[in-house]
Amino acid sequence: MPTIKSIHHVAVVVDDMQKSLSFWRDALGLELHELRDVPAEQAQVAFLPLAGTEIELVQPTTSDSGIAKYLAKRGQGMHHICLQVDDIAAMLEQLRARGVRLINEQARTAADGKLYAFVHPEATGGVLVELYQV
Amino acid sequence: MPTIKSIHHVAVVVDDMQKSLSFWRDALGLELHELRDVPAEQAQVAFLPLAGTEIELVQPTTSDSGIAKYLAKRGQGMHHICLQVDDIAAMLEQLRARGVRLINEQARTAADGKLYAFVHPEATGGVLVELYQV
Repeated sequence: MPTIKSIHHVAVVVDDMQKSLSFWRDALGLELHELRDVPAEQAQVAFLPLAGTEIELVQPTTSDSGIAKYLAKRGQGMHHICLQVDDIAAMLEQLRARGVRLINEQARTAADGKLYAFVHPEATGGVLVELYQV
Repeated sequence: MPTIKSIHHVAVVVDDMQKSLSFWRDALGLELHELRDVPAEQAQVAFLPLAGTEIELVQPTTSDSGIAKYLAKRGQGMHHICLQVDDIAAMLEQLRARGVRLINEQARTAADGKLYAFVHPEATGGVLVELYQV
């Protein structure tokens, strides 16, 4: 039986990375592990690990990506929560069997080889949920 | 120096607790630790612990609370992220010294005696952040 292991990260979409870091890193004192351009997502991402999970700040670097459109429409704020699962294929099968609406019916492979899929917010209580098999 | 210790919980505001539990508990398989009426917040709250942090589902039980108005205006979705801090008074002082806008200038005491305060989303990149000293 597939098992959710942890909250892998909480992603926040921001419009000004340096201003956001002045809060999360400088004022709160979280460690900035890495600030990286992620061309595949057309975004710059700040990774701030915290006790086995992570805050990720995401700033779009183009105006026509999905995340840029989200920012333009909804403004800054929490974008999704990512849950680590031990067997993503089995979990997606379990969700489908229960009629849960999925954005990705099958797991997709990220640039770094990890498997992920998104669950539709309609099924979760309005939250965009990412499943992630590390 | 005050230190953020963990993500204490991520709170999701929902309009139908049983429907939300059918996803988080039944389909994903998270443990429902407790489902509790919290009169002080005019809400019913489901606590689903997960690897040192927690998903909290919050359904308003009246129509005129802050959380009910949030739900009416914005719909279901992530409401706030709560960070555990070892010394909330020192952290609030540190935030004020950096000009971070706070909702609660001083820590408030919850019904169970724990100290909490909210940071204004303007300061955080659009995220309502709760600080919590357990």
